[in-house]
Amino acid sequence: MMVTNGKKVWQACGCEAVYVACEYMMRYVSGFVAENGFIIIDKDATTLFTDMRYIEAAEKQFAGTEVKPVLYKQGEALERLAKYKSVGISFDQTSHAEYVAMEKAGVKLVNIDGCLTSLMTVKNEWEIMQIAKACEIAEDAFNLLLPEIKEGMTEVEVAALLEYNMRKLGAQGLSFETIVAFGAHASVPHHETGETKLQFGDEILIDFGCKVNGYCSDITRTFLFGDDGKHEAFKKAYQAVLTAHELVKEKVVGGMTGAQADAVAREYLTEQGYGHLFTHSLGHGIGLNVHEYPRVNKISAEILTDGMVFSDEPGVYVAGEYGIRIEDTVTLENGKIRSFMSKTDKKLIVL
Amino acid sequence: MMVTNGKKVWQACGCEAVYVACEYMMRYVSGFVAENGFIIIDKDATTLFTDMRYIEAAEKQFAGTEVKPVLYKQGEALERLAKYKSVGISFDQTSHAEYVAMEKAGVKLVNIDGCLTSLMTVKNEWEIMQIAKACEIAEDAFNLLLPEIKEGMTEVEVAALLEYNMRKLGAQGLSFETIVAFGAHASVPHHETGETKLQFGDEILIDFGCKVNGYCSDITRTFLFGDDGKHEAFKKAYQAVLTAHELVKEKVVGGMTGAQADAVAREYLTEQGYGHLFTHSLGHGIGLNVHEYPRVNKISAEILTDGMVFSDEPGVYVAGEYGIRIEDTVTLENGKIRSFMSKTDKKLIVL
Repeated sequence: MMVTNGKKVWQACGCEAVYVACEYMMRYVSGFVAENGFIIIDKDATTLFTDMRYIEAAEKQFAGTEVKPVLYKQGEALERLAKYKSVGISFDQTSHAEYVAMEKAGVKLVNIDGCLTSLMTVKNEWEIMQIAKACEIAEDAFNLLLPEIKEGMTEVEVAALLEYNMRKLGAQGLSFETIVAFGAHASVPHHETGETKLQFGDEILIDFGCKVNGYCSDITRTFLFGDDGKHEAFKKAYQAVLTAHELVKEKVVGGMTGAQADAVAREYLTEQGYGHLFTHSLGHGIGLNVHEYPRVNKISAEILTDGMVFSDEPGVYVAGEYGIRIEDTVTLENGKIRSFMSKTDKKLIVL
Repeated sequence: MMVTNGKKVWQACGCEAVYVACEYMMRYVSGFVAENGFIIIDKDATTLFTDMRYIEAAEKQFAGTEVKPVLYKQGEALERLAKYKSVGISFDQTSHAEYVAMEKAGVKLVNIDGCLTSLMTVKNEWEIMQIAKACEIAEDAFNLLLPEIKEGMTEVEVAALLEYNMRKLGAQGLSFETIVAFGAHASVPHHETGETKLQFGDEILIDFGCKVNGYCSDITRTFLFGDDGKHEAFKKAYQAVLTAHELVKEKVVGGMTGAQADAVAREYLTEQGYGHLFTHSLGHGIGLNVHEYPRVNKISAEILTDGMVFSDEPGVYVAGEYGIRIEDTVTLENGKIRSFMSKTDKKLIVL
């Protein structure tokens, strides 16, 4: 059964009420999304205010739960909020325009970003299950894709097939725009998937992910479409990236900082002579956002603990030649790394 | 060739500099998107600040143009912005947290939302071409989908196929999560596409769209999967919605307000006895956002002019029974409505 986080947020933030209006925060506190609407949590209830378009779905979803869906009238949010002694909102997720309007209406606003970040960084069991499912779909979709890849296909066609597979397998959307990079395109870490056609001997880098109930997966695989014998440097670097990726799983434990985790991969790649080519962070937190806390980069002082979910994605890029990134979505469980990805082979695949 | 809007924004807003950091505004002023980065426009240049992951792509894209891509250092935005006498930003698109940080750093901020909205509501020729292309892809994808729809398919499978078609045809993403509703699900205007299986005699409502260079299409079609002879009320309502939809194309002209346009459809549906079942607005502006200005609802005082793009989507919903919506993305050209959709038949389709 779904475990929502509304009451938990209210209890932790210490305000008389909590106000939530952005899509992913609505998801977090109630599991529901509506394009127009907002949620107020106070000591009595979690109330979802929405419009005609969503009310039927909301009534169905929340029948018998603590969440009360009601139809709202224009301007009602401000009126209601002004009655509380303090209203917690996310300053990060509230536009300055909305802030000004609330302040003008006499709403006493308190920034609860710190509290929200702490809570959202550590996932509950239900949230972990959604992420695990999103990861499973991504891997299954990738395994279905491999035998379908043919010479002459464009990057876009490969992305389309992969996304179709994810959707058929139950994904409710993409975590982000799928990156498919052929050949030297892979040296651009965030290459824009295009019309380039696949040729024998090309490397292929695919970075993708999907959503289940709003929760994201994130995975990258790098492999070869045939071996034209010109991939010595690539293969050597691949092995180094893979070892760095696996070292992270082995050596990162609860209590380390994000920076210490990053260093596990970075120090190894540096020893191997690739340090300067590892141009981004080891990873990033994953949840309702595909990029969230904890940060797992050179300067992150955040302590990694059980229930956190993040990516393990070392990479090596040589501009105009090749790019390699191997990424799993992982979590900490009993102080050790558990990867959500177990269905795809990481030994270099040569199609 | 791409026509960017950076200089136009700077000229119109009257500030010494304009600062843009959100994805779709970066698209608007430069045509480029990066997950991390920002753009400063001043009298000398449009400068794109981005990180290692995007710099190679940016340098390629902007070679020989007025946009200068540079690598940025942490904290550089505030430092640079503090030097200007006035910096225009969108208060709607800037979080309150970011606003506070900028103010603290001594940046003299001016709200340019009004100016941005006016500019963005009227599309240039290049923008119109992107929307037209996004509409063409959506229609072609729909036509490819129809013969593939079979009894027993789930809503999700139909959505997956349609999205696959769009992607293959060149879509760079979805305008929004595809809505596929079978049977009475169509009476929920924003139904969440699910695992329901298609049965003979079901109605099907599909609301979907895709993006080309960031610009959206939005289209809805309602049709029958076989005729089980139980659709008298549905068919009558379909005809009324279609007539309302066509009346809008015929009667809405430049100079009318959004409310007057809405009234064209609403008055007709009211005459036909469906007014109370038309539970949403006639339409909404479409551009880099799938919902933007102009508003085309009961209270919109915005004047419709050439170059505006919006949806014409009357609908009739009977809870638990049926829902009908017929939607085109349209523009005003020489004072008259021009639909971007001409490849799909709106006479009731019975598969």
